[in-house]
Amino acid sequence: MTVELICVGTEILLGNIVNTNAAYLAEKCAGLGLSCYFQTVVGDNEERLTQVLSDAVSRSDIVILSGGLGPTEDDLTKNTAAKVCGRKLYVDDRSMERIAEYFAHRDMIPTENNWKQAMVPEGAIVLDNNNGTAPGIIMETENCRVILLPGPPGELIPMFEESVVEYLNKLTPEVICSQTVKICGISESSVETTIKDLIDNQTNPTIATYAKTGEVHIRVTASAKDKKQANKLIKPVVKELKSRFGYDIYTTEEKTTLEKAVVDLLLANKLSVTCAESCTGGMLSARLINVPGVSEVYKSGFVTYSNKAKRKLLGVKKGTLEKYGAVSSQTAEEMANGAAAASKSDVTVALTGIAGPDGGTKDKPVGLVYIACNVKGNVTVKEFHFQGNRAKIREAAVSAALRLMRSSILEYFSRVTFGK
Amino acid sequence: MTVELICVGTEILLGNIVNTNAAYLAEKCAGLGLSCYFQTVVGDNEERLTQVLSDAVSRSDIVILSGGLGPTEDDLTKNTAAKVCGRKLYVDDRSMERIAEYFAHRDMIPTENNWKQAMVPEGAIVLDNNNGTAPGIIMETENCRVILLPGPPGELIPMFEESVVEYLNKLTPEVICSQTVKICGISESSVETTIKDLIDNQTNPTIATYAKTGEVHIRVTASAKDKKQANKLIKPVVKELKSRFGYDIYTTEEKTTLEKAVVDLLLANKLSVTCAESCTGGMLSARLINVPGVSEVYKSGFVTYSNKAKRKLLGVKKGTLEKYGAVSSQTAEEMANGAAAASKSDVTVALTGIAGPDGGTKDKPVGLVYIACNVKGNVTVKEFHFQGNRAKIREAAVSAALRLMRSSILEYFSRVTFGK
Repeated sequence: MTVELICVGTEILLGNIVNTNAAYLAEKCAGLGLSCYFQTVVGDNEERLTQVLSDAVSRSDIVILSGGLGPTEDDLTKNTAAKVCGRKLYVDDRSMERIAEYFAHRDMIPTENNWKQAMVPEGAIVLDNNNGTAPGIIMETENCRVILLPGPPGELIPMFEESVVEYLNKLTPEVICSQTVKICGISESSVETTIKDLIDNQTNPTIATYAKTGEVHIRVTASAKDKKQANKLIKPVVKELKSRFGYDIYTTEEKTTLEKAVVDLLLANKLSVTCAESCTGGMLSARLINVPGVSEVYKSGFVTYSNKAKRKLLGVKKGTLEKYGAVSSQTAEEMANGAAAASKSDVTVALTGIAGPDGGTKDKPVGLVYIACNVKGNVTVKEFHFQGNRAKIREAAVSAALRLMRSSILEYFSRVTFGK
Repeated sequence: MTVELICVGTEILLGNIVNTNAAYLAEKCAGLGLSCYFQTVVGDNEERLTQVLSDAVSRSDIVILSGGLGPTEDDLTKNTAAKVCGRKLYVDDRSMERIAEYFAHRDMIPTENNWKQAMVPEGAIVLDNNNGTAPGIIMETENCRVILLPGPPGELIPMFEESVVEYLNKLTPEVICSQTVKICGISESSVETTIKDLIDNQTNPTIATYAKTGEVHIRVTASAKDKKQANKLIKPVVKELKSRFGYDIYTTEEKTTLEKAVVDLLLANKLSVTCAESCTGGMLSARLINVPGVSEVYKSGFVTYSNKAKRKLLGVKKGTLEKYGAVSSQTAEEMANGAAAASKSDVTVALTGIAGPDGGTKDKPVGLVYIACNVKGNVTVKEFHFQGNRAKIREAAVSAALRLMRSSILEYFSRVTFGK
C-alpha cells in the first residue's frame, strides 16, 4: 500500500521550523511496510491545499496530513479535507467535553474559536488528543484513507503511536513487524561496513540503518501472513547482529532509549547515581529523570557551572583548577569523586567542557569536553571533541556521558565477576 | 515572484534523514522576498519526478531542486529536468576539468560514472561546485527558472550563497522584511482574539501567529522596494502590538528565546540565579545554561529528586514534607528559600511536581506542579496543572518557571521603583 504525507504550515514554507514531523511519519510508515512516494508541504491556503490533497487522494491509498488543526482563522486543514472528501462537519459532543475538560483542568477559559476544534466531518473516526485540544480525524473514502493529525510533535507523536499505528496495521493483509537494534559508540559508516553483506543480500526481512546523536539504530523489518511468521523471519537476523556487535547493542526494544537502558542497568544492580554537570548544566540529569521509576536510583544532582561551585559543592581543589583549568581531565575526575563523597552514590558522572560559542582557545577549542565516571571508586575519564553549535555540543556530550556510564558499569561488573 | 522546492531522495521519503535542505532554502528564499507555496519530496524515480516537476514548472516562477545529481545510476534529476525543459545534454569542458582537478587534488581516480556529472543541458548556466563534483545548473525557460543543486548540505549551502543568491536577487524588484513579537503566558487563541481586527485587515504587512510551548510568536512581514521602506511599514504594527500586549511581550528580536530574555534580565540587573529542581530534574538549569554568557549570573544548581536531597541540600523541613508532602506549595517555597540560603543567589526558583506516569493521586494528580520563585527574599509560589506525557509535563513546567522568573523579577523592580 502507498502512503503520502502532506504537512500543512506556513512556518515550514518560510523555513521557520524544520519539518521533523515528515521524517517521523516517514520512518514510522516505512516500518509499517507502507511505500511513501511523495511528501508535500503546503501553506494554510484553501485553494492550494485542495489542489495538493486532491492529487494525493487520487494516487495514494493513504494520505496523512499534519498541522492546521488549531483554533485560529488560518487553521483550515479540517474544513478543506472534509470538502475534498465530500463530508459536512458537525459538533462532536465527546470532543466538546474533552476541550472543556482540558481548559477547566488548567483553570483557563476557552475562547469562542476553541470550540471550532470540536467540529468533525460526518462519518469520521475521531482520535483522542491526550496532549492538546485538536482531535485527530480519519475519513475513509472509496479509494483512500485520509488521516488528519495535529501539527505539534508533542501531540502528533503520541496520537500516532496510541491510535494510528493500530489502524494502519489493520489495512494491510500482511503483517509487517520490525525490531530495532540500537547501537551506541560506533559510527554509521562502520556499522554499515560491518553489515554490508547483510544489506546487499536483504529481501525479507529488510535491514535499514538510521543515524541518531551518538547512536545508530538498525531496523529489521519482515512481512509475513501473521505476527508469529514475521517474528520468525526477524529472529535469526537479530541474532546475527547481536553476534556481530555484542555489547555495543544497548537494547533491542523499540521503546528503550539509551537513558532507559542506563537506568535499567542501575536498577538491576541497585546502584544509586549522581550527576555533576558543568557545560551540560543539568541536561544529563534531565534525561535520566525522564525515565519513569528513576527515583529508586537517582536521588540528587549538582549543576556546578562556576569554579566556586565546583569547589564548594564537589570539593574540587583550588590547585587543580589553577594548574589544569576547569576544563581538564583532572577537574572532571575530582568532580566525579567529589560528587561521590558528597552524595554517597554508587555511580557518579561529571562533565566539564567548552560548549561555545566563546571561551575556546587553541589548546582547548570549543567542543572539548571531559567526562568522568566513578563506579564504586573506579574512575574512568575520557576526552571528547564535539562539533556544531552550543546546543549540539551539549547534546552530544550528554549522549557520550550515557555511553560512558553504561560501559563503566558493565566493565566494573565484568571485573568483579571475572576478576579481570 | 513564487518559488517552489523539490527535494529528491529516497532517504528523505524513508525518514532516514530530516529534510534540513528544505528548511534552509525556504528561509533563504523568504528572506529574498520570494513566496514559497509548495515544497515536495520525491524519490529517485523518473516518472514521479517528471510529474512533480511538470506541475511545479507550470505554476511557479522559480523551481529549486536539490539532490539526485550524484554519479550513480539512481541519480536522475539532471536528465529528467533537462527532458522536462526540452533540452539535450552535452559534455561541458569546464566541468570535465573541474572534476579531473577535484580527484587529482585528492589523489583519487574518478570512476567512469563520475564523467556523467560533467554533462549539462544546452543553454544552461553552470554553477561551480567548490565542495564536490556535481555542478549546479540553471535552466531558463519562457515562464520558469529551474535551478538544480547538489543534495549534500555541505555542497548545497555554499553553492546557494556563492552563486544562487546573486542570481535570485536580480529577479525580484521588492525586498521582504519581517519582525517577530514573542509573547509568553497567553494562549494562541486569546492572542488571536486580541488582534483579530489587525489580522482581518492585514494586507502589507501581513501578520501571522505561531504557537510554541508556553509562548505565542507573532510575525509581521512587509514587502517594499527596499529594506528601509519595509521596516517603515513594520514599525507601526509592532508598536500597536506592544501597546496591546505590554509586558507579556518578552522580546521583539528574532533570535531571543524566553531563556535568553530571562538571562538578559538577570544580567541587566546583576542578579545571580540558582535553580532547585525536583520533577524537571535539571531541565530548567539546562535551558538557562544554553544561553551564551550565562556564566555571569548562573553559578550553581541543585537537582533534589528525593526527599532526603531536599532536606540535606536545601534544608526543607522534615515536618513540611510529612505534613504537606513533597509536591506542595509549602515544599516549593522552602526549596526556593533553602536554595537562596545555600547559594546566596539573588534569584532562586524551585520546582516540585508529579510528572507521571505513576505517582498521581486523586488529590494530587499527574501534571500537578508547584513553582516557587524567590527574588531577594520576596517569594511567589504558583500551582500549575499540565497535561500530556512525562516529557510534555516537564517541558511545560520549565516554560512556566521561566515565565514566573520573568514576572517575579519585573514585579520586584516595579515594587522597588514605584513602591507598590
